[in-house]
Amino acid sequence: MENTYAIGIDVGGTNTDMGLVRDDGKIIDRRRIPTTNYTTIEPYVKDIMAHIESMVAGGDPEKGVKSIPLAELTGIGIGAPNGNFYTGCVEFAPNLPMKGVLKFEEEFHKYVYFPVVLSNDANAAAYGEYVYGGARGMDNFIMITLGTGVGSGIVLDGKLVHGSTGTAGELGHNILIPGGRPCSCGRRGCLEAYTSARGIVQTYVELRNEKGVPADAADHIGWITADMADKDLTSKTIGDAANAGDPLAKETYRIVGTWLGIACANACTFSAPQALFLMGGPTKVGNPLLDPLRESFDANLLNIYKGSCKIYMSQLKANEVAILGAAALIKMKAN
Amino acid sequence: MENTYAIGIDVGGTNTDMGLVRDDGKIIDRRRIPTTNYTTIEPYVKDIMAHIESMVAGGDPEKGVKSIPLAELTGIGIGAPNGNFYTGCVEFAPNLPMKGVLKFEEEFHKYVYFPVVLSNDANAAAYGEYVYGGARGMDNFIMITLGTGVGSGIVLDGKLVHGSTGTAGELGHNILIPGGRPCSCGRRGCLEAYTSARGIVQTYVELRNEKGVPADAADHIGWITADMADKDLTSKTIGDAANAGDPLAKETYRIVGTWLGIACANACTFSAPQALFLMGGPTKVGNPLLDPLRESFDANLLNIYKGSCKIYMSQLKANEVAILGAAALIKMKAN
Repeated sequence: MENTYAIGIDVGGTNTDMGLVRDDGKIIDRRRIPTTNYTTIEPYVKDIMAHIESMVAGGDPEKGVKSIPLAELTGIGIGAPNGNFYTGCVEFAPNLPMKGVLKFEEEFHKYVYFPVVLSNDANAAAYGEYVYGGARGMDNFIMITLGTGVGSGIVLDGKLVHGSTGTAGELGHNILIPGGRPCSCGRRGCLEAYTSARGIVQTYVELRNEKGVPADAADHIGWITADMADKDLTSKTIGDAANAGDPLAKETYRIVGTWLGIACANACTFSAPQALFLMGGPTKVGNPLLDPLRESFDANLLNIYKGSCKIYMSQLKANEVAILGAAALIKMKAN
Repeated sequence: MENTYAIGIDVGGTNTDMGLVRDDGKIIDRRRIPTTNYTTIEPYVKDIMAHIESMVAGGDPEKGVKSIPLAELTGIGIGAPNGNFYTGCVEFAPNLPMKGVLKFEEEFHKYVYFPVVLSNDANAAAYGEYVYGGARGMDNFIMITLGTGVGSGIVLDGKLVHGSTGTAGELGHNILIPGGRPCSCGRRGCLEAYTSARGIVQTYVELRNEKGVPADAADHIGWITADMADKDLTSKTIGDAANAGDPLAKETYRIVGTWLGIACANACTFSAPQALFLMGGPTKVGNPLLDPLRESFDANLLNIYKGSCKIYMSQLKANEVAILGAAALIKMKAN
């Protein structure tokens, strides 16, 4: 069979990345435009379409294809914050410069007749893992994405769970600690408030305020010293320090991993997945997060699920997952 | 079209109820045997089959049918604790006198060739609500059952969620309060520990130990007095007292309703259901539970789901739901 190709578009608050994706998961060509240049959707989609035309015209040099024949283009998949699978709209995404209800699918259909599929960015990442990554062959799994926020995508019987609204799968806003920390969503105690990049920094700051940094911190390479201001801390700084042996940083990730393990165990009571996948910047710290996470997951998992669900890291490259995930959405629509 | 009929069997720790159910949800005939008489599955299924034969031979008097023609019998549906949809087995149900892995489907297939479908009792209740009750026409909803334990059944796109193991949908063991009360499952802080009949009694006892009963409790009809021992309290006693205005009993249900509201809001972050249904003894108290539950649900629901999900009581009769739910499972297998 001939190759087919899909366009994957990742709509971020700062940049929009797009790629021409071959069905084996190879990104043939990719482009970037600043999302921040646009306050309305019409010029935004127009400029994206110009790049798509250009990528398609460029063909697949690896295969000696000079331009992609239309018959081999399966569609445009879009991952976007607050993307609604059913309506094809992005609805009131707080971090985009374009405001209100953005009719993505409709706008793209002014240019092309083939399928345009939209879902939120975490759902897209989950489906990318399913089509191109470590979840191939797993029909029941959950992806949790840690970053500025905490997102999730739930795959059940091979399909993304979109629920009655098109916006299901928001485990970052599962309330983990009733009455707990304020969350960006306006409520309290959400998983996101504890395990997002910001939540990690907050935990470190709380620990530092309570215990102070070790007196000999400056003697250790990579430890965080008392003179580093709260505002300069990031989940990466703290992660690097944890890997350098900084006890406060290690304790921070131990706490965060413990919380995340409870959340993963709770997710199992819903859909009994074969696996949970993790991705995003804060997961790159590795063992300081993963060891306590797995320990907490095992301790908090309901007995009947023990042994049937494992925790993995995403197998896709960090700079490819968003484009691949968006392109993968086309495969679901086709089912 | 002619009527069809299904057999619904509800396997309880004390009794097993079975019924001949017409496809309009009418229970034509019903029987009961004590589950506690059986320590192995072979004589148990044999005796159930004798009752099924007898019910089928009795026909449908309302329709003037003297015995149910085999062509109109669609199958046997079974709701049982720890029932696994995929394997057709009941696996290590702590409250049944029969122990270990019980091969229900296989045992029934020694007698009949038509479909035998097994799921856990809360899943069956959910599907009964979908086929015969208040969830008709709703393809995305969640049933939560309060009783000795707390169970749940999740319907997504018209099908029960069974996950990778066949045992998904155990929201009663979602951890609501990390590190909280010991639960019957051996872990801590599960929803069941707070909103089961036992959890309700525990909350009352904690309040009473902390505050004491009102000095004038004996002057009010229906209030719980200081001389009632902890062991004599039930969720019903406390519910009746709440409806009689007993402040400690009202406070108990206010707390329980608040917890349940958070759990319902959390469930929405998974599958964005159109509705949550509640059933079981402790829900019969009515407003002392439902008012704080709805208030807590509204306060804790993520913004994007507001207005799209409502909380309802089961529309099926308490003494029919288990049989109807079991019979309804046959409809899912047929899809």
